[in-house]
Amino acid sequence: MSKIRLGIVGYGNVGRGVECAIAQNSDMELVAIFTRRNPAEIVPTTAGVKVFDIAEAESHSVDVMLLCGGSANDLIEQTPRFAAMFNCVDSFDTHAKIPEYFAAVDECAKKAKKVSIISTGWDPGLFSLIRVLGMACLPFGCGYTFWGKGVSQGHSNAIRSVKDVKYAVQYTVPKADALAEVRKGGNPTLIKRQKHTRECFVVAEPHADTHLIEQTIVTMPDYFRDDETLVHFISEEEFHAAHTDMPHGGFVFRTGATGGQGTLGEKGEGSGHKQRMEFSLQLDNNPGFTASVMLAYARAAHRLSLKGEVGARTVLDIPLGLLTQDSMEELRRTVL
Amino acid sequence: MSKIRLGIVGYGNVGRGVECAIAQNSDMELVAIFTRRNPAEIVPTTAGVKVFDIAEAESHSVDVMLLCGGSANDLIEQTPRFAAMFNCVDSFDTHAKIPEYFAAVDECAKKAKKVSIISTGWDPGLFSLIRVLGMACLPFGCGYTFWGKGVSQGHSNAIRSVKDVKYAVQYTVPKADALAEVRKGGNPTLIKRQKHTRECFVVAEPHADTHLIEQTIVTMPDYFRDDETLVHFISEEEFHAAHTDMPHGGFVFRTGATGGQGTLGEKGEGSGHKQRMEFSLQLDNNPGFTASVMLAYARAAHRLSLKGEVGARTVLDIPLGLLTQDSMEELRRTVL
Repeated sequence: MSKIRLGIVGYGNVGRGVECAIAQNSDMELVAIFTRRNPAEIVPTTAGVKVFDIAEAESHSVDVMLLCGGSANDLIEQTPRFAAMFNCVDSFDTHAKIPEYFAAVDECAKKAKKVSIISTGWDPGLFSLIRVLGMACLPFGCGYTFWGKGVSQGHSNAIRSVKDVKYAVQYTVPKADALAEVRKGGNPTLIKRQKHTRECFVVAEPHADTHLIEQTIVTMPDYFRDDETLVHFISEEEFHAAHTDMPHGGFVFRTGATGGQGTLGEKGEGSGHKQRMEFSLQLDNNPGFTASVMLAYARAAHRLSLKGEVGARTVLDIPLGLLTQDSMEELRRTVL
Repeated sequence: MSKIRLGIVGYGNVGRGVECAIAQNSDMELVAIFTRRNPAEIVPTTAGVKVFDIAEAESHSVDVMLLCGGSANDLIEQTPRFAAMFNCVDSFDTHAKIPEYFAAVDECAKKAKKVSIISTGWDPGLFSLIRVLGMACLPFGCGYTFWGKGVSQGHSNAIRSVKDVKYAVQYTVPKADALAEVRKGGNPTLIKRQKHTRECFVVAEPHADTHLIEQTIVTMPDYFRDDETLVHFISEEEFHAAHTDMPHGGFVFRTGATGGQGTLGEKGEGSGHKQRMEFSLQLDNNPGFTASVMLAYARAAHRLSLKGEVGARTVLDIPLGLLTQDSMEELRRTVL
């Protein structure tokens, strides 16, 4: 059987992750990389693969295009354009803008008779699947999402904008006592500040006023003022040795109750039996995992397109049995 | 909007669980219960609901029939028959027989132009979804399923067959060191004995030879001989006070690696980044949760049937967005 021909648009961390992940999927091949930078300056890892200017994409034969740019500046503009030419998969993660983004991509994909699966990855993505599964299986209950321990790029950038900060990284860390309270099944009401700690590792310029830097960070509106924020000053050597990976992950819970003959409250309190669902990811490399999830959905996009489906989709529309190389028959026999 | 009209076939633990769970789903109503026992002897919890002999089911108007019997003696015979009359959902859990069961149900459902979703519940069911998700997102990796802590009915029955045993329950307990080893990401090869302990609580008849009972249990082929088995003798009072609930649950892991440019082994060892997915259920009442999952899939069966789909399905065929009361549009806006 011929392989699924994939193209990569955007050769940053996720794009390079997709390239690596294709080598782990024997039914896929990378046919080209498209970039807004100078193609001559990019050396792909995969032997024989060429790099082209993004404007040249249209003339290529690709079964599914992996859109690997950032949500705010790249995807919002690129995805509708590419959805009008190719089956596409992206990891658009600006939750608040998903409805309008979906509508724009859906319109272009339908006109072109192509399939576009938006917002794959792990949140939105796998975490969304688990949230919905929890709501469906425990309708009387509460859902919780915790993020981390992991690097928040947005918050790290905010610290880097502070005067006399040379390097900085911010880890979002779930609070152990909040996790424990949720696991107990009491369905607590937790405000944002009670769920996560923001831990910052900062390299200051020589002779900088570290007290001033710390105060500037912890009082920064939108980013840190409303959260519990810890600031650690470290050396440049320590920063490069211990803080340049991109770990992430998190937890999704659904805690509720069944039984009790309708006497339960909306939150699952009452006379029924407690039931708990917990899902967690511990990722040593966030873009590498996101890329791997995108490829699973690229396979599904290809299969849906072959069946004649058109338009935008999310992970909630896709049967999970379409994600692996195995047929449904094989999965029923070996995995179900 | 009119409610989804549901029927229950088989009024045991799962059937009663379905009845309770319907009260938690405002888009559903229970229209009738069908039993092989004497209908006059059954008093449903739900006001106004009538109980009929199973042979009378055909004449009733039901959108989806919930088949709540046991896999070995009830479903294997009932489901094809009911699939030829109604949309159906069951929790058939004999993994080895799923392919032939699926084929039999599929044939009947297609002829009748109905939808039947087989093997819902949590294993097979939710655990199957997570196993497939793990395989898809971490193709270079290992999958692990642990069950418990929870009651194994089959093993409990086996103990009860031993001479001078009055009451008995067997808990399957995942071994903490095996869980820890999997969480570390070393992708260990674990044989059956290394994953679970079988813990038995036994009430012996007065003057019974408890040493003989214990030896009979721990050497019992197929059930206990190859596993680490602990036997505790307790009083009848303690048994009734602490061991009549039906808790269960378990863990599904996928541990693997991404990146490393194709130098990884099949098991995820090598130069890439470690990635871990973990899903767990802690259920205070196994049949109650199984029933609640069945209802989520009953909603999906109804929706698929309205769209004109026919034939047998498993959880791997069903988009998760069909499981809740919310529309896909609402889920994209609020949950994705």
